[in-house]
Formats: sequence, C-alpha cells, structure tokens
Amino acid sequence: MDTARSFTPVHAGDIGAFDHEADVLVAGFGCAGAAAAYEAATAGAEVLVLERAGGPGGSSAMSGGELYLGGGTAVQRACGYDDSADNMFAFLRVALGPHADEEKLRLYCDGSVEHFEWFRERGLTFNPSLYEGQSWMPPTQDGLMWLGENAYPYDVVADAVPRGHRPATESYGGWMLMEKLVAAATEAGTRQHADTRATGLVLDGGAVVGLVARKYGERVTYRARRAVVLTTGGFVDDEGMLADHAPMLLGHGKVSAGLDDGSGIAMGMAIGAATRGMSVTQIAASILPAMICRGMLVNSRGQRFINEDVYPGLASVAAVRHQPAPHWVIIDEEGYEDIPQRDLWNVRPAFVDETLSGLEKDLGLPPGALESTVATYNEHAERGEDPYFHKNARWLRPLRPPFAAIDPRRGFEPGGEGGGSSTGVSGFTLGGLRTTTDGAVLDVSGNVIDGLYAAGRASSGMHGEGYISGTSLGDGTFFGRRAGRAAAAGRRDG
Amino acid sequence: MDTARSFTPVHAGDIGAFDHEADVLVAGFGCAGAAAAYEAATAGAEVLVLERAGGPGGSSAMSGGELYLGGGTAVQRACGYDDSADNMFAFLRVALGPHADEEKLRLYCDGSVEHFEWFRERGLTFNPSLYEGQSWMPPTQDGLMWLGENAYPYDVVADAVPRGHRPATESYGGWMLMEKLVAAATEAGTRQHADTRATGLVLDGGAVVGLVARKYGERVTYRARRAVVLTTGGFVDDEGMLADHAPMLLGHGKVSAGLDDGSGIAMGMAIGAATRGMSVTQIAASILPAMICRGMLVNSRGQRFINEDVYPGLASVAAVRHQPAPHWVIIDEEGYEDIPQRDLWNVRPAFVDETLSGLEKDLGLPPGALESTVATYNEHAERGEDPYFHKNARWLRPLRPPFAAIDPRRGFEPGGEGGGSSTGVSGFTLGGLRTTTDGAVLDVSGNVIDGLYAAGRASSGMHGEGYISGTSLGDGTFFGRRAGRAAAAGRRDG
Repeated sequence: MDTARSFTPVHAGDIGAFDHEADVLVAGFGCAGAAAAYEAATAGAEVLVLERAGGPGGSSAMSGGELYLGGGTAVQRACGYDDSADNMFAFLRVALGPHADEEKLRLYCDGSVEHFEWFRERGLTFNPSLYEGQSWMPPTQDGLMWLGENAYPYDVVADAVPRGHRPATESYGGWMLMEKLVAAATEAGTRQHADTRATGLVLDGGAVVGLVARKYGERVTYRARRAVVLTTGGFVDDEGMLADHAPMLLGHGKVSAGLDDGSGIAMGMAIGAATRGMSVTQIAASILPAMICRGMLVNSRGQRFINEDVYPGLASVAAVRHQPAPHWVIIDEEGYEDIPQRDLWNVRPAFVDETLSGLEKDLGLPPGALESTVATYNEHAERGEDPYFHKNARWLRPLRPPFAAIDPRRGFEPGGEGGGSSTGVSGFTLGGLRTTTDGAVLDVSGNVIDGLYAAGRASSGMHGEGYISGTSLGDGTFFGRRAGRAAAAGRRDG
Repeated sequence: MDTARSFTPVHAGDIGAFDHEADVLVAGFGCAGAAAAYEAATAGAEVLVLERAGGPGGSSAMSGGELYLGGGTAVQRACGYDDSADNMFAFLRVALGPHADEEKLRLYCDGSVEHFEWFRERGLTFNPSLYEGQSWMPPTQDGLMWLGENAYPYDVVADAVPRGHRPATESYGGWMLMEKLVAAATEAGTRQHADTRATGLVLDGGAVVGLVARKYGERVTYRARRAVVLTTGGFVDDEGMLADHAPMLLGHGKVSAGLDDGSGIAMGMAIGAATRGMSVTQIAASILPAMICRGMLVNSRGQRFINEDVYPGLASVAAVRHQPAPHWVIIDEEGYEDIPQRDLWNVRPAFVDETLSGLEKDLGLPPGALESTVATYNEHAERGEDPYFHKNARWLRPLRPPFAAIDPRRGFEPGGEGGGSSTGVSGFTLGGLRTTTDGAVLDVSGNVIDGLYAAGRASSGMHGEGYISGTSLGDGTFFGRRAGRAAAAGRRDG
C-alpha cells in the first residue's frame, strides 16, 4: 500500500495526547484556506493552517488572479458599466451551467460587491480601467476584462457587462492575490505549519475532532476544538483519482502548482462524505481569443462548431470535450495581421496556403471540407451575419487568400496555459465534497458531518458543468470566508 | 431527514442478536445478484438474497436480454463466424472506451465462451441464426445480432463478427434470462427475503459483517458469516444522485424497473468505499437504426456528425452528449420505403417536403444548411464514399426528393426504449463502487474492504466511457459469478 495515498480516519481514543491543538484547523493554504483562516481568526478563533508545501500560496498563487465579481463594483462603475446582482446571476446560471448550484450562486451574486470591497480592504488594488483586447491574460495593469459576457447567447440572457476583475499587475496576478490574503490571515492571528501534509480525519463518534498529518516522515496529530476546514484543492495531480472521476484530463497538462492531490476530498470520502460533480473540469486549449474571433475554429472534419468570440475556455471545452480532434484555427492574412502584437503571444501558423483546397491537403481534411465551410461563412459574413453560431458582427468579414492554419497542439510559446503539455490542452478539476452554503460537509445520506467544513476545489462549489475565469478563485474565497466563520462558531470549545 | 435515503452504517456491537444470518448475504436479485447467489451456493455457502421489490428480476428482467458474448461461441460458429478472445478484446477496448478497465475486459473476453456455456447449462436457449436487419431489438427468435461490429472504425480495429447473443424469444428477452438465473440460484439452495430493502452495512471494526434492512417499515438485521455482496443496480432512479454524479440524465427517461436507487453504492460510500466512472451513462435516443443507415442524422445546424451505421446507442451518445439539439433524421422516400416493416416500428415523418430548402424552414435550420450537407453527402455517395464519417458503402446512395424529417423527441410508438420519456431519450448509469476483478470493494485509499463485494451496476465494471448492448448484463453476470465465488470463500465462518 502506498502510504502517501492512505486516508483512513483515526479514532480520537486511539491517539491519547495530541501533538498540537487549535480551535479551527485548516488544511491547505491556498485562496480558500487563507479566506477561511482570516474569517475564523477575526471571529476570535485560534486558527492553525497545515500546508503540504514549504509555504502558502498553492495553485491560487500560480493562477492568473482574476476574480469574477460584479453586481456594480467600484471598478465596473468607474469604467461606465451598470450591473446588478440579478444581471450577474442571469449570466452565471447559464455560463456555469447546466446544473449550476443556484442557491450558492444566488448568495455569491448578492454578496459580490461586498466581497470585492473585502479584497480592497485586504490591500488588493484594482485599477479602474478596462482591457479592450481579446486575451486569456492581459499584459497590462487594467483592472477589468471581458470574459465572454458580450458573446451569444450570454448577451441575450443578460445585459453584457465585463466582470473579470484583475489585481493591479501585468499578466499572472495570483501571487499578488495570495500575498495579500496570507498577510491578512497572518495578521489576524493565524499560525501555519508548513511541510505538513494532512492525511486523515480524527473522529470521535460521528464527529470530526482533528487531523493526523505527516511532517518529514513522522506522524503528527492535531486536535480541533471547534472544527476542521478542508481547503486542499482539487485532484488534477492525482492520476488515480483522475482515472476514476475525470479521465478526460488524463494525458493533458495540469493547471496547478503540482500538489492538487485530492487529499481533502479523499479524507472526506473515507468517512462517508458525499461528492458532487467529480467529472466536471475546466479546460484550456492553446487557442488565442484574438485569433479565433478574427478567423474560425474547426474540427477534424473542417466543421465550425461555436461562435469564436465566446470566453475561450468555453470554446476549449466545446472542442476538446465534444469535437473530433485535431482542431484547427483557420485565419487569413488580413485577420492575422490585424491582431495586436500584445495579444498574439508569438503564435505562428503551422501551414500557409494560397488555396483552401491546398490547406485541406496540408491538414488531412476531407476534400472540399474547408472550401464548403469558408464559402458558407463568407456568404453570411458579407451581410454581417452568422446564422449558424451568432458570432458578433464586429468580427465578421469574408476570409480571403492567403490562408493559414494554426495547430493548438503546439501550445503557446513561451509559457502560457497549455504550454506545458504535449497536447496543448490543460485543465483542472471542479468537483469535490458536497457542502452546504456555509461549507458544512454532507454525508451520503444528506446529513451534516459534525465538525467538518470544506471550500475551494476540495468542495463542489457553485459550478454546474460550465466555467468562467475567476469563478474558482471567486467561489473559493467567498465560500472559504463563510466556512471560516461557521467553523469559528463551532460548539465544541470544551 | 428522509429515512429512505439514510445509509449510515451500524456497528455490530450496537445490534446484539441479529434477526437472521447466512454465510453470504446478497442485496438485490437482478442478474448480478442471481449469478453471485448461484455461484456462492454452488460453492457450498448458505446464501440469502434480500430484494427490495416483491420478487426477483429487477431491471434485468425488463431489459432486452442481449448478452454480449464471443470469442467463438457455438452460436457464432453455427452462423459461420470465426471469433477469438483477442479479436473480441480488440473490439471492446475501443467500443467500451476510452478508459475501459482492460484487466476486467481481458478476463471477460477470455472467459466468454465458458460464460456462454454456463448460460446454456442454466437452461437458456440461443437459436443458431443471425438477424440480418438493423434494429435495437429484433422481433424474431434469432440467437445472434450485429451490434456495430461491422461499422467504422470497429471493422478496422478488429475482424467484424456479430456478438449480440439473444435468448430464444421475440423482442425483449430479459424476463427469460432472469427466469432461468433465479431458478438456478434457487435450485442451488439460495433463500430470498422479498420486500426487504437493505439500508446500511453492519461493521465490526473495519470489516463488513452484515446488513440492516427495512421490511414493511420495521428494521430487520442480518448477519453475514462470510461476506456481503451488493448487487442493487445503478442510480438512475435517484434524482439526488443523478444531480450529483450524472446530471445529463436529469429529465430524460429511465431504463430501469424503477428501483435503481443507488442504495448499494451509497451504502458503500457511507463506509468510505471508492467509486469509479459515476458520470458514465448509457443513452438511447429514439432513432431507428434501419432508418439512419439509409438516411442521415443531423444536429440543430444541419450538420452530420457520425457514420449512421454504428451501434445506435453510440449514435445516441454522439447526438445527446455532444451535438446541439434538436437532432433530426433526414431520409428520402426511396430510403423510407426500403425499410423492412419489422424494423420500422411505426415511426412516421414529422415533416415531408419536395425541397431541402422547404425542409430547412420546417425544421428551423439555417438557410442552406441541409442543402449543403445533402449535396456533399450525395456527391460522395455517387462514388460509394463517405470521406467524412466512413459509413459503409452498402448504405450509400444519393438522397432524392421528396424528403422527410423524423423527430426523435417523439419517441417510438408504441413503447420501445425512449418511448416513456418526453424527450425521446432514456438511459441508465454505468458508474459505481470500485472493485477488484473478484468483486472485492476498494476503499478510497485503495485497500480491500474486508467482507464486502459488489457486482453489476452497483459497481463500476469493465466499461470506460462507451457502451454496447449486452455488456451490462454480460459484465453483471460474469463478475457477479466471480464475486459470488470469492464471497463464499470468505474466512469469517466462526
């Protein structure tokens, strides 16, 4: 047996004297753990965070740092956009669906402005300017970006306003987010044990009263006077759990800091906790938003399948999950030249050809496939229409020779999401422990497990089968805060 | 709390005197339970089966009764087909994949001829004749049918031989299969408690030593001297479990006898058992194999997406899981008239039109969508080719006016799979408890749970993400037998 993968619970009676204790134990010091620790400590609890790595941050610190927020934040208003909680809800229930958790989503939208201000109070700065380009990750310090809100059908179900909130730094901003959150938790009194990997829950009857962990090969025991909060992240780094629950990510790149080992989920399952949405994944293919808008994305048969101006994660899911591979980006010279350098990320064509029939041969497509697809596209684009997929008219223009095909399997050079995988595709998991809106973990019979909370990607949050950038950091911190407050209010102080 | 959904385990020490006991307890008297009970009893164990319904049969008895068997059975040989275990394996690892359990699959293919003979020894008859039509369910007593083995790409990865084995009765044959298996288990000495719903496992330390159940509202306790075998079926009838694990089936019809409540899976999860593939589902849309072969299947944009001569469950999955709805079957008058009455199932066109542009309007498709798709199809069909999807040349013929569109949402009339749902789609779940090849249930740390076995759709079997008719009855009985033998060999006789 691989002891690194043992999550068997321990009974309190078998421990005797615990090595350490606190009111609230938090396992994992990413964004959800930091938010939970801050709130629990601020509510007066003595909080101790166990972190497997040598220091805090986790996958949150490696992320882009976008926070999906709205409902009328100061940044939205400064950029001239009116938003409301209802409008945000109308968008997200479709964008994160089908089967979004509407109860969690409602709370998240209603609390979004307050959550935004909470980040500002923790010292995070968001500049009052909108990035106008199409990008996974703006290279500017603009505080706001579009995440597909202005694309069909989202512009029909809700008023189109941008909600991607970005800390004031270029490109990846997760490090800055975590720097502020960890500082806030620490200043509130949270202690941290690093290099300490939680491996199992401690039970007293049916209640969770602590954690056992490994530190430098030794077992260490922790008593929780009030509650344990699991914020260990998802399971993209555990191949066994991927095979059992989300095999579509096998073989692809991992959006993580390398320690999303699913241990919190497994510790919960080991005592009978329920899970939800374990097969749901976020997926990013190496397709440039600024490029597919101006051209088209086709499958291995040369067929289009989506309006290319949607949030690029959605186009990625549509391709990788639902369309035969390989996928190709087709664009003409005029479109390629029109892409601003800052949004081009050094992506170069795999093939260039004067004719579509030549490009079909280069790509191994059925003869006539691209000619037919482009002819149909051009015929409608002349009139500013896309009756098949409803790409916004501002991107519609007939494609003319010479043509180019880009191979997303090559990834982005250098770096960028997907750049680290041989498939050009990378992702992470969204499923996890089933929780109440306060983060209490439920067992398979639907009962709350006394003393156990979870948040972030160790839990299943507000997502159904859809995803938008910033909703994982957003839901991790929002429901992490709620879990921290509920854990601090735990009743086992004796 | 809904006590009908409580699966909390009970500790043996809290029970005192058990109401009943046996060497091996089996929960659920469908095909896997009957096979397990037969083998355990034949191996000398005292076997007691608990069944929630008033009598045995379960969803197996309501099923078509096809058994996916091969490797050179007497029926295959009588019909003139050479097959081997390797050839069967080559087909199934692709057809049940990606991510089929190759260890289980290998055993299944290697043991398939023996398993076929086991059914015959239990009194089941398979006539030595092949049904030549294209159908979900032949109306004849032919003992063999094709299940897509002769369609691309399966005819490339393996030699095409038919493996759908059918008991000697018209149409649905599950009742006959279960009649024989229940009789065999009973003659071997198995006792049955009907109207008895197992609700929780009894634990002694980490070992499973019994079951608690409800009968007419009262709790009844059962001790297992050797082992418990969970064969309670899948979870398509539990809306909560569907929402958490396989939401794509929400709102669709259920292929079950109404009691696939996931209780065995939940009882296992309640003590920390691992699961696998909980999001995997079989799906049947109301599309007639004999009709789509002769015409085409298109999505809401008028695009084809699969060679229409595949196993119709695969075409259903391709449509429902991956293509925008509504889906349409397009055929011309000549093709419609060519369908044998016995394979037509009274399915009638929703729209008939002299022109494709007229049909596009009827169906609300983008203008030119069907004209383009049919023109491409016809151009290649003239030459007996289908370069996009590789439908077999015997089905290729240009489609000519007048044209018809069939709406699969209408279901089959009368009855037929999908007929009972408002969407024309129905399905069942394939995920469940993670087991060894002998049916021992594993916990989330990968350790065998002492005294606990599972088979059939309460477990995750040899399936990856694909499905073929007859592989669920096949895997349920094959691994049910193995679980029964292993349970009977249990070591807790004292």
